Amino acid sequence: MIEMPKGYLLAAAGADFRGKGQDRNDLCLVLSETPAAAAGTFTTNRFPAAPVTVCRDYLSSHGTAQAMVINSGQANACTGDKGMQNCRASLRMVSSALHAAGRDVPPELILPASTGVIGAQMDMGKWEKALPGLASSLGTVDLEGLARAMMTTDRFPKMAGRVVELPGGASVRLAGAAKGAGMICPNMATTLAVVMCDAAVPEGEWRTMVKNATDKSFNRVCVDGDTSTNDTILAFANGASGVAPDRAHMPELQKALTDVLRDLAYMLVRDGEGATKVMCIHVSGARSSEDADKIARTVGNSQLVKTAMFGRDPNWGRIVAAVGRSGADFCEKDVRVELCGVTLFEHGMPVDIDFDKALEEPLSQVDLPLEISVGNGSGEAVLLASDLSHDYVTLNSDYRS
Amino acid sequence: MIEMPKGYLLAAAGADFRGKGQDRNDLCLVLSETPAAAAGTFTTNRFPAAPVTVCRDYLSSHGTAQAMVINSGQANACTGDKGMQNCRASLRMVSSALHAAGRDVPPELILPASTGVIGAQMDMGKWEKALPGLASSLGTVDLEGLARAMMTTDRFPKMAGRVVELPGGASVRLAGAAKGAGMICPNMATTLAVVMCDAAVPEGEWRTMVKNATDKSFNRVCVDGDTSTNDTILAFANGASGVAPDRAHMPELQKALTDVLRDLAYMLVRDGEGATKVMCIHVSGARSSEDADKIARTVGNSQLVKTAMFGRDPNWGRIVAAVGRSGADFCEKDVRVELCGVTLFEHGMPVDIDFDKALEEPLSQVDLPLEISVGNGSGEAVLLASDLSHDYVTLNSDYRS
Repeated sequence: MIEMPKGYLLAAAGADFRGKGQDRNDLCLVLSETPAAAAGTFTTNRFPAAPVTVCRDYLSSHGTAQAMVINSGQANACTGDKGMQNCRASLRMVSSALHAAGRDVPPELILPASTGVIGAQMDMGKWEKALPGLASSLGTVDLEGLARAMMTTDRFPKMAGRVVELPGGASVRLAGAAKGAGMICPNMATTLAVVMCDAAVPEGEWRTMVKNATDKSFNRVCVDGDTSTNDTILAFANGASGVAPDRAHMPELQKALTDVLRDLAYMLVRDGEGATKVMCIHVSGARSSEDADKIARTVGNSQLVKTAMFGRDPNWGRIVAAVGRSGADFCEKDVRVELCGVTLFEHGMPVDIDFDKALEEPLSQVDLPLEISVGNGSGEAVLLASDLSHDYVTLNSDYRS
Repeated sequence: MIEMPKGYLLAAAGADFRGKGQDRNDLCLVLSETPAAAAGTFTTNRFPAAPVTVCRDYLSSHGTAQAMVINSGQANACTGDKGMQNCRASLRMVSSALHAAGRDVPPELILPASTGVIGAQMDMGKWEKALPGLASSLGTVDLEGLARAMMTTDRFPKMAGRVVELPGGASVRLAGAAKGAGMICPNMATTLAVVMCDAAVPEGEWRTMVKNATDKSFNRVCVDGDTSTNDTILAFANGASGVAPDRAHMPELQKALTDVLRDLAYMLVRDGEGATKVMCIHVSGARSSEDADKIARTVGNSQLVKTAMFGRDPNWGRIVAAVGRSGADFCEKDVRVELCGVTLFEHGMPVDIDFDKALEEPLSQVDLPLEISVGNGSGEAVLLASDLSHDYVTLNSDYRS
């Protein structure tokens, strides 16, 4: 049971952005009762969606926001100047709808995020029709309802939370929701995520904490190596708990924030399109952390390694071949590979055991720890990666129909 | 009909390296009747197979060889010192078998290549048993028989040839065979290929020509982004035609050699594991050829683009998203994407046509030309890439069983 942070209200509504007349919510709103410290991380794609540009521009010079509006079904990416105009118009419309529902939030304090099909212009008539219901239903939706309204090809809603207990009986809460599924690549996972926190944190510190947490979570996952135009993580800290953690307790808050994003990132990989496995790749002993990262990403992105894991095949040869083509510098005799606790490869050769027998049971599990050491260096890296299944191909060869 | 170059004899035999008692050839031999100019290109993987190391070591200081022995079923990769000993022993055994069959070829003029499962030591007893039959059957096998003995998961044998007509009625011939299928990545395609030529060409020039031809063929293809431990291309020019092209006609010979390797490289992609499509990606207008190459490889390796092509889905959004994350430098408004002759995207936005209607027929074809221009620069790149199908997953999740 996730304890909701204080001072946030959630809402969700159906706007039928997909035009299929489905009975589902595809528009949602997170509102802090007061302006909050706000920070975000965004896609590095050269074709950022309009809402990404709007958020990034705003947060590059501001550290406060009050709301986030998320739609699924239309990505508002590759939509040119009109897409930017529509995005800004949607924020004014949300502000008006909130005003009509008795809440005054200026458009510039509302941050947008979109996910869905790229290239089509948003249907502003659908926004107009759905927004009054969205604004008037604030507070009637829980975290799961929020997470469900964000979903595209996700199989399950993704939520996480933490409570940080502070001295004197004080506590602060964090809760987050995310959508993921396909196009999930490091740097950063293609996803939308929102985290709410009720601690009081100075804007600059919150920004640093969100960046640190993202680097250790969403930037360490990999489903299909693609990066979308719409990747967005936004995090708010509104102080509604009345608790401002002092310097000594900031590391605890940082840890809780990182843990919430890690939980969500794990669920993203777990729900990678068609995923049946989560490889937890740990590379150590590399000459630099860059080399360790190259190895982890080459292994985690290898279609051959991914299909082997799907097939429960302890194919150390594909793992070693991926290590070998990663571009990292090492001596082949120093490479050691351990899958699910079983050493498969060392001293440049496979060990002499019956792999299929030793790994039959472990490879039937969902979580597959994969340890790769390549020497005595201090370079280390971690990456969560999904497998590659028939369902991935089915979902992605038939996405639009 | 491919005209065989003069002065070469081919043989194939069954050694049952897979241990399944299959009635198929898995060992083959290419013999030039006289020592020939020889050159090769090899995998850049940090775990090169033993035969790769043997070939590379030899050709780094020699430009002449007379034979190539190829086995499929066992890769002799990640087999340590014993693998190297076995590889060298196999060459001595081939030499002995040839001697017994009345042909004297020293072991150092025989170059090895292996493909198959990584990590297991070769079964030298199987070599010993099969070699007499291999040596005594020289000349009884045609190019297709050679190509078939090299196959692993290939669906069809891969052969190509050219005849170069020279002034005065003279001519020289080139013929090649290759195996490909999975693990095919640029730099270089995981494959074995052999090219025979009966022109007389100085060793140094042959080496340059082989490198040029590889760069324009096998290094421009992409199936699954993986690179194997065993990639090998070897090419021989034995002069048996009695024709030594003069300087003025060397470009024709270069073109013919490049064309043979291009034909084989195309067949590799066409037969990429589970492939149903061949994207011919042409990037132009980039600020440098490196940038053009980054774009071509990011698009060609994108799982999302590959699955879209499999699904006959004109999903320009995935193409554009891949261009955007390639790391290349360009202005998004300058990007233009044309698939099968239909413009999908320009000025930063999709064009306003019915894509599904316009592309239904073209996307049902095998060959899919994809033109991507990103500005006015002079950087250009070409890449052949396969799609990603259900059969890829089936083949690779179930490879060993």
